[in-house]
Formats: sequence, C-alpha cells, structure tokens
Amino acid sequence: MAAPPGLGEFERIARFFAPLAAPGALGLTDDVALIDGPDGQQYVLTTDAIVEGLDYFPDDPVSQVAQKLLRVNLSDLAAKGATPFGYLLVTALPADRGDAWLAEFTKGLAADQKEFGMALLGGDSSSTPGPTTLTVMALGLVKKGKALLRSGAKAGDLIFVSGTLGDSALGLALLKGELNNLDVSARDFFVDRYRLPQPRLMLGQKLVGIAHAALDVSDGLVADLGHLCDASKLGATIDYPRLPLSPAANNVINANPILNQAVIGGGDDYEIVFTAPPDAVQAVAEASREAGVKVTEIGRMAAGKGVRVLDAQGAAMSVEIAGYRHF
Amino acid sequence: MAAPPGLGEFERIARFFAPLAAPGALGLTDDVALIDGPDGQQYVLTTDAIVEGLDYFPDDPVSQVAQKLLRVNLSDLAAKGATPFGYLLVTALPADRGDAWLAEFTKGLAADQKEFGMALLGGDSSSTPGPTTLTVMALGLVKKGKALLRSGAKAGDLIFVSGTLGDSALGLALLKGELNNLDVSARDFFVDRYRLPQPRLMLGQKLVGIAHAALDVSDGLVADLGHLCDASKLGATIDYPRLPLSPAANNVINANPILNQAVIGGGDDYEIVFTAPPDAVQAVAEASREAGVKVTEIGRMAAGKGVRVLDAQGAAMSVEIAGYRHF
Repeated sequence: MAAPPGLGEFERIARFFAPLAAPGALGLTDDVALIDGPDGQQYVLTTDAIVEGLDYFPDDPVSQVAQKLLRVNLSDLAAKGATPFGYLLVTALPADRGDAWLAEFTKGLAADQKEFGMALLGGDSSSTPGPTTLTVMALGLVKKGKALLRSGAKAGDLIFVSGTLGDSALGLALLKGELNNLDVSARDFFVDRYRLPQPRLMLGQKLVGIAHAALDVSDGLVADLGHLCDASKLGATIDYPRLPLSPAANNVINANPILNQAVIGGGDDYEIVFTAPPDAVQAVAEASREAGVKVTEIGRMAAGKGVRVLDAQGAAMSVEIAGYRHF
Repeated sequence: MAAPPGLGEFERIARFFAPLAAPGALGLTDDVALIDGPDGQQYVLTTDAIVEGLDYFPDDPVSQVAQKLLRVNLSDLAAKGATPFGYLLVTALPADRGDAWLAEFTKGLAADQKEFGMALLGGDSSSTPGPTTLTVMALGLVKKGKALLRSGAKAGDLIFVSGTLGDSALGLALLKGELNNLDVSARDFFVDRYRLPQPRLMLGQKLVGIAHAALDVSDGLVADLGHLCDASKLGATIDYPRLPLSPAANNVINANPILNQAVIGGGDDYEIVFTAPPDAVQAVAEASREAGVKVTEIGRMAAGKGVRVLDAQGAAMSVEIAGYRHF
C-alpha cells in the first residue's frame, strides 16, 4: 500500500472534504456523525469499507470476513458509547462470487446480528472487475449530547485502554509469514484476534458520563491517540511498561523485543482508548467490571501536541506508525 | 456484465438477505429504509455505488461523476417524497488518483450540495487495485408514515411518469459508439441526460398524499414498474404510444423504430413512475405544475402480475429488459 501521489489522507480530508461537511459531521475530525433521532436520542453514523487483499486475506473464512466487516463498524459505535441499531450493506463482487459464497457471507452476518442486536436496513450490490469490496454503514443510538467524542479530553485526564494491545498486529504478521516458531495455541489466538475484533459495546455504553473523550484503536495506539490529541488540542504521554499485553504477546515480545512496535504502532486492535479525570478512576473500574472487560491506565493528557511513548527509564521511544490509512 | 453464477439479484436478496432485514427495511423490497427521526419525521436511507467502467466511463468528466453519484441517490429520495438531509461517502481509489482528481471530484460534490441542499456527514476511504468504486449513502426526511412506497398501488390506479424516457439509454448507446449520424445538439442532449440525472425532488415532495406508490426509473421503465407490481401484488398495463419522448428521442426512434427498446427497457432515466387513483388526476397535474416537471399518464394498475406494454393497435409488445442489475 504505497502512499498515493500528493497529500496524505488527513490532509486530503482537511483540504477537500472538510469544506463540504454538515454540522453533524463534527468537522470530519471524528469517526462518526451525529444526527437527531427520536425521543431525545441521536443516531451515531459510521462507515467502513474493506477490500480483499488489502484489509483481509483471500483465504480468510468468508463468514468471518462478514463478521469483521460488521465489527470494525461496531467498534466505532462502541467507542462513542452507542447501542447498535442497524446497518446498510454495499457489496461489489467479482463475477465468480456465487451463491455458496453469499451463503457463507450471510451466515456470518446473521451470527453477528444476533450477537450484537442489530439488523440489515438495506443496501446495494454491483459486480466489479476488481477485488471484492464490502462496505457497511452502521447506525447506533445514544442519548442526545452524550456521545463520547475525540475532542472532549482535558489536560490532566488519565488515559485508559481496554483489553490488550498488539495481538491483532501479531496475527497479521503471522498470516504474512513474518512470525514463525509459535505454538499452535498462540498462533490461533493471534489470528483470531486479527480476524474477529471484539467491539467493546458494553464498556463504551458504561463509559458514557464518565469518559471525557474516546475512540477505537484501528490505526494503532499512537496514531489513534494522536487523532484524539489533535481533536482535543492537547498532547499525550503514555508509559510503554504499563501497556496491557496478552500472555501470548508478552512471550513473543520478550523473545523479540523489536516486536513491541506491534503494540504501539500496529493496527486493528479495536480496543477503546479513552480519557477520564483522575477522580473518575473508581467509576472507570466499575464500568470495566460491569462490562467484563479489562481496562488499564496507560498515561495522561497535558498541554502540548502529539503522543510521546516513554520506556521503563522514562526515555522517549521511537514509534513506527504502521497505521497508515490511505485516501 | 455477464450474470453471476447461480441466482439472479432479486432471488439472492430474497434468499440470503431478506431473512436479515430489520423492520424498517420494508422487507428489502423497496429502494430505501425508513427509520424514526425527530419531530414526527422519518429518515429515508438509501445507498448506491458506482464502479468506473461499469456505471460510468473512465473519460467522463470527474466533477460530473461526483454529481451522478449523488444524483442517483437523490433520485431514490425524490421518488419517496423525501427532502435531502445529508450523505456519507466511501471511496475506493486506485493509487494514481491524485489531488487533482479529488479537487475535481469535490468540486462536483460542492455544486450539487448547493443545488440540492444537503451536506457531507462522513465517510471512509481506501485504496484499491481495482477500478474506482464510489459509494454514497444518502439520508432524506419525510413526515412519518408519508413516504411513497413501491407497495401502495391499488387496482384501478392510473400510472404516471415524469419527464421523458429513453434519452439516457440513447446517450449510453452513443457513448458506446452504437448510434451515429446525430447532429451535435441531439448528441449533447442525450449524453447530458446520461451523465447528469435530474432528481425530481420537488415533484416527489408534491406527490406525498396524492400518489399511492412510486419509485424511480433506474433499471428501465418495465423492470422498475415490475418491482412496483411485485411489491403491490398487482399487474400493470402501459400504452407505448403515450410514453413521453423528448423531440430528439422521437426523431431517432422514428428513423430507427427498434430503438423504442431504449424507452421501455433502457435504464438510467431517473424519472419517477407513480400510481394515483383516477380522482387524483387534477392534483397530479397541479403537483406537476408546481414542480415545473412534466407528468404523463401512461397506463393503469389492475389485478394480475407483471407489466404489459401495448402498441398503437393494442397488441402486446416484446420488451428486452436491459436493466439487469447484478449482485
């Protein structure tokens, strides 16, 4: 995925698309738009597309591709504190995608509709001479004015993240043949984390009224926290030793420390990173317990710009941003 | 565009997708979904994607591609009687689409946002090794319960269509090199009708409370009226001699009568076909006048199934359905 000629994605959004933005579009600086719904609620709108060969592997199980497609969208809803409502689906399929493919694909959709409580609202389909391209636009509901945005962080806030980081990037490395000599259970764990994100919906809903700002980690912790910093006009400092790792990731990184870049720069974690004031630590812990999802304090917000990652000695670490997203 | 292996588009929707449908999805038998909005209104949701080389030509002006992308969606809103509200945009672009392309593309979006009163709510972007694939999900607003659906036609209703039919299909034939010896003004007229649909928004809004059923003609008059018949569980008879033709189309078809298939089977008209009871003829004429769009009575609904087209002698004409839409 080479960079396109000219401006990068975020510069392109700022130059070409931001002037077109509606009031509910939040200046296109968040992952979502907010529009008024019924009964004092707002719809949270988000859309994500995945392309075969870029965002998933041609031999990934088709039903899991369907689930990943829904879940990358649900993860955006989760980070805003929304409850899933429904989705539109647009498919552009090569001519050789037959009924058997669709049967598997819709099996995955059906499973996740049931798990996450949403249903299909409509869509469109076309054929394409290119790769399979799948787009979902998901709608969630949140009490009006209560959505967790990127822009709400305050200086002095603590930074938290759900679950564990880096597993999915290690799964991707594995599938690309870049990681060997792992036992089967570690291998399966990483691949599963890559293929089947777990949208933290319950946690997000519990954080409404507690967190000041939130977004999901799809481009990598440092890149996404950078977006939150930009939107909140603040800087962030995170402590690498506090970042939550799975036991499997811990083993791999102990054996090959350079893989710590998977934790701070790798993408596809689909965890929630959020900020909350120090006096909310107890409430955060309670939300974590109620949602059954681990939450870890990893740093703090302050005046400034950008994200610094400190090692065990308090020295700034270098970060490779893998989370390049192309326009 | 060969048919994919296995079932056709509508059978695929019925078998694989209808079981996934939410209540607001209207059983996936309409072009749109309806969800509750604020203040006694409903959002009308629709989505359409266009693929370079299939739905538009690589050398079509980029700003007009952007306009066509918006307008095919706006046409769906128009046929439901909705007022445009906003849209999400998803682009999958080859790596060689640079800033100059985006500048032209967003110029087209800006022009139509202004013309039709809507703004960008958000979106997603990716690169693709395949052709440029552009998706819009558009939202409109309509008074709750007042949207014009496909399913509302009654036996005895008259059938009406806006504007003129066949111009766009003739424009497509022209661009494919299948029509020659036209004067420049006819050529420009047909190509313009193909590239720049005119969503009949004002007319659709005026028809709320008057029409029983409506949809826009994107797949061709007979194919789309067939969808309306299916959803309303009725049959339709239309009289070919009454179909409204532009003077340019009239000339071309007089010279080459087989091109009448462009009128009844060709797609991309983006006119509204609708039904209304005989006692609404005056109200329909008034809506037409207020909207500044010609409306022509072309046939009637009755018990039965499917669409018959009668010639000047009252004999059934054969129809080539060009409007195949692939899943």
